Amino acid sequence: MSTIRTIKLNCDMGQGFGAWQMGADKDIMPHIDMANIACGFHAGDPHLISKTIDLALQNDVMIGAHPGYPDKQGFGQRSLALSDEEMCDIVIYQIGALKALCESKNAELSYVKPHGALYRDMMRDKNIFRSMVDAVSCFNLPLMILASSNNQDYLDLADRFDVPLLFEAVADRTYLANGQLTPDTLPNAILHNEEAILNQVKQITRYGKVTSADGFILAIEADTLCVNPSHPRAVELINRIREQLR
Amino acid sequence: MSTIRTIKLNCDMGQGFGAWQMGADKDIMPHIDMANIACGFHAGDPHLISKTIDLALQNDVMIGAHPGYPDKQGFGQRSLALSDEEMCDIVIYQIGALKALCESKNAELSYVKPHGALYRDMMRDKNIFRSMVDAVSCFNLPLMILASSNNQDYLDLADRFDVPLLFEAVADRTYLANGQLTPDTLPNAILHNEEAILNQVKQITRYGKVTSADGFILAIEADTLCVNPSHPRAVELINRIREQLR
Amino acid sequence: MSTIRTIKLNCDMGQGFGAWQMGADKDIMPHIDMANIACGFHAGDPHLISKTIDLALQNDVMIGAHPGYPDKQGFGQRSLALSDEEMCDIVIYQIGALKALCESKNAELSYVKPHGALYRDMMRDKNIFRSMVDAVSCFNLPLMILASSNNQDYLDLADRFDVPLLFEAVADRTYLANGQLTPDTLPNAILHNEEAILNQVKQITRYGKVTSADGFILAIEADTLCVNPSHPRAVELINRIREQLR
Amino acid sequence: MSTIRTIKLNCDMGQGFGAWQMGADKDIMPHIDMANIACGFHAGDPHLISKTIDLALQNDVMIGAHPGYPDKQGFGQRSLALSDEEMCDIVIYQIGALKALCESKNAELSYVKPHGALYRDMMRDKNIFRSMVDAVSCFNLPLMILASSNNQDYLDLADRFDVPLLFEAVADRTYLANGQLTPDTLPNAILHNEEAILNQVKQITRYGKVTSADGFILAIEADTLCVNPSHPRAVELINRIREQLR
Repeated sequence: MSTIRTIKLNCDMGQGFGAWQMGADKDIMPHIDMANIACGFHAGDPHLISKTIDLALQNDVMIGAHPGYPDKQGFGQRSLALSDEEMCDIVIYQIGALKALCESKNAELSYVKPHGALYRDMMRDKNIFRSMVDAVSCFNLPLMILASSNNQDYLDLADRFDVPLLFEAVADRTYLANGQLTPDTLPNAILHNEEAILNQVKQITRYGKVTSADGFILAIEADTLCVNPSHPRAVELINRIREQLR
Repeated sequence: MSTIRTIKLNCDMGQGFGAWQMGADKDIMPHIDMANIACGFHAGDPHLISKTIDLALQNDVMIGAHPGYPDKQGFGQRSLALSDEEMCDIVIYQIGALKALCESKNAELSYVKPHGALYRDMMRDKNIFRSMVDAVSCFNLPLMILASSNNQDYLDLADRFDVPLLFEAVADRTYLANGQLTPDTLPNAILHNEEAILNQVKQITRYGKVTSADGFILAIEADTLCVNPSHPRAVELINRIREQLR
Repeated sequence: MSTIRTIKLNCDMGQGFGAWQMGADKDIMPHIDMANIACGFHAGDPHLISKTIDLALQNDVMIGAHPGYPDKQGFGQRSLALSDEEMCDIVIYQIGALKALCESKNAELSYVKPHGALYRDMMRDKNIFRSMVDAVSCFNLPLMILASSNNQDYLDLADRFDVPLLFEAVADRTYLANGQLTPDTLPNAILHNEEAILNQVKQITRYGKVTSADGFILAIEADTLCVNPSHPRAVELINRIREQLR
Repeated sequence: MSTIRTIKLNCDMGQGFGAWQMGADKDIMPHIDMANIACGFHAGDPHLISKTIDLALQNDVMIGAHPGYPDKQGFGQRSLALSDEEMCDIVIYQIGALKALCESKNAELSYVKPHGALYRDMMRDKNIFRSMVDAVSCFNLPLMILASSNNQDYLDLADRFDVPLLFEAVADRTYLANGQLTPDTLPNAILHNEEAILNQVKQITRYGKVTSADGFILAIEADTLCVNPSHPRAVELINRIREQLR
C-alpha cells in the first residue's frame, strides 16, 4: 500500500495566547510534515501566528489553518450553538486571517483542519460538516477530517462543493466501534503508553486498520496521521513514530 | 476644483458586537459611498461583518477594512503599546479576515482605514504609520489617512512600500492648528451643530480649507469626507451633506 | 390573594458593555422595583455596574445580581458545558464582584437571578440548579427562579442549602404545558401584543394562573413579575403594567 | 533588625487561564508565605482562582488579591488609559470576586497587590495610587506597594483613606537611583544570576539597603520580599532565599 511510505504527520501548532505557551513548538516542528496552526479564536493571536508560520517555513513544513470555536477560556473544547451561517462565517474569517499572514511571508496555506469541539461536531452533524465544506470552498483548499469507514459519505457531500478531503487517523486516541474517536470525557479516550501508540500507528499505516476500544477491527484509509504535541514525551514519541514509518 | 463633484462620503459601519448594535447601518448605508467595516478586534464579529458586506453590496457601496486595536471593552479608543511586528500582524490578520468574507460573496475589498486610537497613533507616530503601510502593502490596496498640510510626508513613506494613500477630511471634528484633529478628550473635539458641520463641509469641499478651533485657516486636500454614524440625527445630517455636495 | 398588592416588577439592567448600550435603563429604572444587574460575564463591566448601582439607589430600587455564562459574544444565551465546580465558581465570582461594588456605595445586594441560558439550564437540569443554590448559599441571599407548578421540587433542594427562593412569572413570554417557558428558538416564544401581555399579567397576578401556548390553564404562584427592557415600547408598557397592578 | 526574621516571601500565583498554565504553583506554594492570586482580568478564571485558594489553604499561605488591567492578551503588562472611577471600579470588582471565592471556602483574604502595568502605574502616578487606595479602602485590607525611599509620601496619602500599606522589595529586579524598578523594557531589568539575587536579598533583608543598577546605595524598608515564579529554577531559588533568611 502506498500509504506506508507517504503518510504525513500532522500536529497542532501555535496553541499559545499572549504570554501563555502550550507545547514545545520549536522542538516538535522539525519532526512533523504538516502544522495545523491555531487561528486566534480558541488559541493563537496574530503575532504568534506570524511566528509559527516562520517556524514552519524554516522547517519546510506544510501549513494548515486550524480554526475553532470562539472560546479561549474553553480552548475550543466546548460546543457552541451557532447557526449554519455563523459557523461558515467564523471559519472563513479565521482561514482568511491566517492566509493573509501566510501570504505576507510568501508562505502557502495548504489545507484546513477544524479544531476540538468544532472538529467533533463536524464529524457527528451533517449540517456543521456542510458549513465547514461551504466555508473551505471559498479558498480552493482541501479539508482534513477523520478517516473512518464512512469516508464515502463525507466525500459525496464535499464533492458537491468541489472541496477535496484529506483523511487523518489519530496516533494516540482510541476508537469506538462506529469508527469515531472515543469522547474526551471518557477515561480511556487517550492512549498514554508509548508501545500501545506505536502499535496503533503500525496497524493504521501498514494494514489500514485500527482496533476499537471494545475490540472491533475497523478498516480506515488515512492520508495523514495526527500526533499529539501535549504528550509528556512528545518530541521523542513523534520521532519514534517517524522512525517506524520509514 | 474637481474634488467638489467627486468627493466621496465614508462612514464607519458594522460597529456592533454579538447582541449589541451601534449605529443605524441599514438607514445610513444608502446614503454613503464607502463603508469602513469593523474587523472584529474593536467591534464586529464574523457574522456581523458578513451581514454588513451584504448591506454594502445591496447599496453599491465600496467596502473598506477598518482594523483597530484588540480591545472591545475600550472600542479601540485606547492606545496599546505594541511592537512594530505586532502592529503589522494585527492589521494583516484583520484585513485578511475581512477580505476572505468579501471574496466569499464576490464583493471587492477596496481600501483600508485604521480605527480610533490606531488611526490617531498612526498619524502622530511615524513607526506606527510605517507598520500600517507595511501591513497594507501585502494587499495591493490604498490606505486612508487624515488629510493635512503634511500629506507629502506620508506620501513619501507610503511610496517606498508602493501603497497609494487616500486622504480624508472629517465633517464634524474640529481641527488643531497643526492640521491634526482635536483629541477626543477635549470638550470641543466634536461639532454638534448641524449648520456648523455643513459650513465646515462646504469649506473643505469647495475651497480645500478648514478653520482650526483656534482660528487658523488650513489648506487640506481631501479625496473623501468622513461622516459620523453616531450623530443623533445621523441619517438626516448625512443626507443634507450629500445634498450640499451636489 | 396577597400577591395582588405586593407583586414586584423585576427587570434586567446594566446590559451594556464598554461603548455598547442596551435598553433605556435611565427611563425604565424609575418604574421597576428590582434591578437584575449584569455582572460582567455576558454583559456589563465594572464601571457600568457601578453606574447602574447608582441609578438603582437614586430610584430606590432593590438590587439583584444577574450572573450569566462567560460569553459576551453570545450574550449568555448559549449553553456552555461546565463542571459543577466551574458552574458554582463562575456564579460566586460574579456575585462577589457585584456585591463589593454595592458595598462600596453602601448599597445592599438583595437577591440573585441567573441570566439567559444559565437560567434555562438551571430550570431544566437539577445538577445545575444545585450548583446555583450552592453558590448563592455563600451569600445569605435568596435565589430567584421561574414560578411553576413544580415550585415545591425546587424548594426542597434549596432548603438543604438554606437558600430561600423567590418565584417569578414572566409578563411577555409564553408558557409550555409543563409550566416552563417556550424556548426562544420557537416563533411564539414572546408575546408582542400589549393587550395580550396585560391580559397575561392580570391572569398571573389576580388569579395565580397562566394559559399555556397550547391552551392549558396552569397554576403559578409568583412573588415577582419579570418585565422586558427590550420591548420597543418598554417604558410605556411597564407603566401600563404598574397601573394595572395598583 | 527584626525584619531579618519576619520578612515574608510573596509570589504571584494562579497566573494561568483556561487550558493555559503558567508557573509551577504546586511546587512553589509550599515555600512562600503570601500568594498574590490573579483575579481574572490579566490572568486567572473563577475555577483556577478557586483551586489556587485551595492550594494556599493546604499550605497555610496568606492570600492576597492581585488585580490587573483587563487585558489577557497583554497579561496586564500594557497600560490602559482609564478614568479614576474606572480604575477604582475594576479593582473593587476583582477584589470582591476573589474575596467571595475565599469566603466560600472559609479562607481569609489578607491584602491587595496590583499587578504588572497597574502596579507600575500606581507607583508613578499619584492619581492612580489614590484610585488603588480608594478601592482597597472598601475592604479593610492593607495595600502592598514597592518599598522605596519615598515610603512616607505613599503613607501620607493612604492614611487619608485609612488604608495600611505593606512595603515589598523585589529579589530579582534591578533598581533605579530613584528607588523605582528598572522598566521591563530595559535589558538589565531582571537579575538572572542566582548569586546576584541572593546577594541582593541579603542586602535588603540584613541591611535595609539595595544597590541601584548604576551604583547608588538606597535605603529601603521592606515588610515582604517578592520572589519570581517564572525563574527557570524558581523552586530551588526560592528555597535558597528561604534558607538564607533563616
